[in-house]
Amino acid sequence: MLSSQRQFLLPILGLLALAGPAFGGVKEVHDVYELSGQPAIQPRFSTDVANGKYTPPEEMDPQFWYSLADEEITKRLALPQPSSLKAKNVIMFLGDGMPLATVAAARILKGQRQGKTGEESSLSFERFPYTGLSRTYCSNAQVPDSACTATAYLCGVKTNIINIGVSAAVNYNNCTASQDPANRLTSIAEWAQNAGKSTGIVTTTTLTHASPSGAYAKTANRMWECDSDVTSYGADASTCIDMATQLVTQTPGKNFEIMFGGGMGKFLPKSITDSHGKAGERSDGVNLLGRWQGLHDGGVLVTNRDQLLSVNVSRVSSIIGLFQSKLMNFHMDADETYQPTLSELTEVAIKKLSQNEEGYFVFIEGGLIDYGNHYTQPGYALDEALEFEKAIQLARDLTNIEDTLIVVTADHGHAVSIAGYPGRGTPILGINQHDTDLNGVKYAVLNYAAGPNQYLDETGQRLPLEDILVSDDAIAPSYIAKEQGVHSGEDVGIWASGPQSHLFTGVMQQSTIPHLMAYASCIGSGQKLCDRA
Amino acid sequence: MLSSQRQFLLPILGLLALAGPAFGGVKEVHDVYELSGQPAIQPRFSTDVANGKYTPPEEMDPQFWYSLADEEITKRLALPQPSSLKAKNVIMFLGDGMPLATVAAARILKGQRQGKTGEESSLSFERFPYTGLSRTYCSNAQVPDSACTATAYLCGVKTNIINIGVSAAVNYNNCTASQDPANRLTSIAEWAQNAGKSTGIVTTTTLTHASPSGAYAKTANRMWECDSDVTSYGADASTCIDMATQLVTQTPGKNFEIMFGGGMGKFLPKSITDSHGKAGERSDGVNLLGRWQGLHDGGVLVTNRDQLLSVNVSRVSSIIGLFQSKLMNFHMDADETYQPTLSELTEVAIKKLSQNEEGYFVFIEGGLIDYGNHYTQPGYALDEALEFEKAIQLARDLTNIEDTLIVVTADHGHAVSIAGYPGRGTPILGINQHDTDLNGVKYAVLNYAAGPNQYLDETGQRLPLEDILVSDDAIAPSYIAKEQGVHSGEDVGIWASGPQSHLFTGVMQQSTIPHLMAYASCIGSGQKLCDRA
Repeated sequence: MLSSQRQFLLPILGLLALAGPAFGGVKEVHDVYELSGQPAIQPRFSTDVANGKYTPPEEMDPQFWYSLADEEITKRLALPQPSSLKAKNVIMFLGDGMPLATVAAARILKGQRQGKTGEESSLSFERFPYTGLSRTYCSNAQVPDSACTATAYLCGVKTNIINIGVSAAVNYNNCTASQDPANRLTSIAEWAQNAGKSTGIVTTTTLTHASPSGAYAKTANRMWECDSDVTSYGADASTCIDMATQLVTQTPGKNFEIMFGGGMGKFLPKSITDSHGKAGERSDGVNLLGRWQGLHDGGVLVTNRDQLLSVNVSRVSSIIGLFQSKLMNFHMDADETYQPTLSELTEVAIKKLSQNEEGYFVFIEGGLIDYGNHYTQPGYALDEALEFEKAIQLARDLTNIEDTLIVVTADHGHAVSIAGYPGRGTPILGINQHDTDLNGVKYAVLNYAAGPNQYLDETGQRLPLEDILVSDDAIAPSYIAKEQGVHSGEDVGIWASGPQSHLFTGVMQQSTIPHLMAYASCIGSGQKLCDRA
Repeated sequence: MLSSQRQFLLPILGLLALAGPAFGGVKEVHDVYELSGQPAIQPRFSTDVANGKYTPPEEMDPQFWYSLADEEITKRLALPQPSSLKAKNVIMFLGDGMPLATVAAARILKGQRQGKTGEESSLSFERFPYTGLSRTYCSNAQVPDSACTATAYLCGVKTNIINIGVSAAVNYNNCTASQDPANRLTSIAEWAQNAGKSTGIVTTTTLTHASPSGAYAKTANRMWECDSDVTSYGADASTCIDMATQLVTQTPGKNFEIMFGGGMGKFLPKSITDSHGKAGERSDGVNLLGRWQGLHDGGVLVTNRDQLLSVNVSRVSSIIGLFQSKLMNFHMDADETYQPTLSELTEVAIKKLSQNEEGYFVFIEGGLIDYGNHYTQPGYALDEALEFEKAIQLARDLTNIEDTLIVVTADHGHAVSIAGYPGRGTPILGINQHDTDLNGVKYAVLNYAAGPNQYLDETGQRLPLEDILVSDDAIAPSYIAKEQGVHSGEDVGIWASGPQSHLFTGVMQQSTIPHLMAYASCIGSGQKLCDRA
């Protein structure tokens, strides 16, 4: 292909082509300080990149790094050999819209909140022994959404964007196709229930949001959260079952012992005011929470932190927690006396589910990381990521590493980067003090591809970054003018700890993740650890 | 920290704060199709994201994914248990400036060149069984350059940006400090030589470029490639030894049996015209190639492909190959009859080095991936990444998986993303056909944070993407106006195969990588496999 294009390329290549091999090659860039077509050396620029940057004194001693490497090696050598230990329990943590850039930035913010330079910090799950890479594309999407990816990491099948729990044979908004048994998938939550395990979902979004819905819903449109939503997309809500109804009335949702999140309005008719003072959203007049309570003897509904923390988990059969009418609030904005943290939700979920001798599967989502990135407000995204990592630490502390597999991953990336050559300890939400654009203007450390705040507007007016990047909720700059940030298509990380966690390494399809969890916990219809000699 | 800031934040939060918990939470985004402050549902947008996208028919059958998962699990289960096998040989492949976004994009381009949708493709090293994540920050840099990172992954110590082979106690351009024995580091190449192994470096840049120099140089300025460079940075070239001289006259460089790359000019005086028709760059009148031949009985100098391929490796003691005066040419532009490919360089290097019964260490760099990204010409970056993956496949094929450890990684990322929601099979170098900006204008699939081509110039003039993104060497759009693209600070991947490759998982400091390779091959002064019972 390339040779056949050479002739076509030549006129375009301009200087590059003219330079040709006889002249010694491509324009030199020298990475950060030498530019094409310019004299070979630009000392001033090199000096700019190198000077004025802080070095932590302890790091000047090579022994610091030798010891750190020795520690990291020792940790790896101390790992148990891949064992025959089975994962009685599986906890899947999902950081929605959490690319590696967000993970690194959150780690830096964590350290900076502790008064350190930040880069040397690490998140709880980054200390897990095994890491893999997850390929996130969907059947019809180079860059996916949270619906098709939830289908991949919970049902083990890639599908079309916007679909949940149905195969790629189903097209967008096609209810009929979604009801064809051939196209309907089962999730790892159902596999776990079939093995006698307890199951649950926890999210900071709504219980009917794309990610948790992957555990129970089958839908040709992730927006069909309640019957009014179905209607508003032109489908017939009387035959096309909305996801809130699926959760309460169908397998496997109706068997969940834990359901924590926002979205109370999706379960209540418009005639009822929910616990948070808002009217329900349903047009069919059905009170799904009343129905749920009728179906769950000993089940309890909680709607705020106090109610949650006062539940005696050994005295209830199941708990549904709906802590806001719609999405839960960002942790940074939340009333901590009213809305429980992800850690608190995680703790109650694990305490309840671990009462089952057969074990459990629980899905726990840091769902607002994605929202922070969509708003191009990295302060929110990173704070949510730090809440996420706290919940994971708690889960690891509360469980036995010999019987509980914890798998942490993201569904997709976001088009954000830690860009340029900021010096050590540069505030991660601030301005890069060590580089400028062509006009000598400093730019931000974190930059989004798309979002509402362009560096330059259409009149050439410059964004006053120094006035903007002063608060934790600042909107970061971007370049493609859009109402919100967009997802990205690179692989996301997988971090694993516990029985069979050694299998969660290498590059894999996102849809392999639930099958590996099923293997480790001996559930589902695929290969199982327990079937091996 | 956050609670104390709440009062400060409140006036800024505006609508968000006003919405408060009582009103049910944060503005809803619903990922891709619902926006803050707007009515809850925007069917048109959702339809836009979902419709008009191609789904490969075979992927509509869930069994397709079940089989793929089964295969991926079987592959993992078939892996040998972590064994006591020692790595007689270690090959380190370094993709310079190769973030996971570039890896995914290269994979897609590979598939698209084969006439497929692309996303389902995979690079040779992505099939390696173990993956880790490497933390790339340097001692004084949140986002690093190729010099401090080379020091990390070859000497096992993080240092300051622009430094090579010396600790962070050395400041930029400070020759005296770089000569203090306390600050000078040894590299894994030297550790290998001390164990009687053969060593070599291979790069598509110059032999004295930052990455390969990490294997042999000690310098307070990566730009000191030859004596003229030292002088141009204001240092005294008579006492401050340039890297070309270090390579030829000092340990461990003088013992390398393979040195392949560009940069012939750095080794020759200005009075001599090199094999490529350009004058040498040295001011000191020294012909380092003459000196090298004097020191290497049986050593051979080659300067083009024919000469390289005609070397009988069993009849020469060592080979220095200098295939261009400066950087080598991009593969896409290169005269294939004149400039060898990275695969050809790799093959000759392995054939030569494997003659040593004690084994070898070789460093092989795809150095122009970084240049492609700096030029914000992803066509070049991805093509170079594909040349890189071909060389890795060849290396794996040429070596015994039971005695040769191959470690693939990058030094740092680049601020580039696969952005928006392009449909399956969208040409990776083209325009995203499934989304627009606020003005209804389509944007590119690949976008850089910084570079020469802004979407809008300062007069509000729009970049005519449809005219630009039609050739493989197109300059992609960016948003911060700079002469070139910039590095990024997220973790990069590690992919490993061969003896002890199971240790290369989890999140690790970049500086741990050479210590792990040393452990596996029983060299160096740290922990060694061979010391274990």
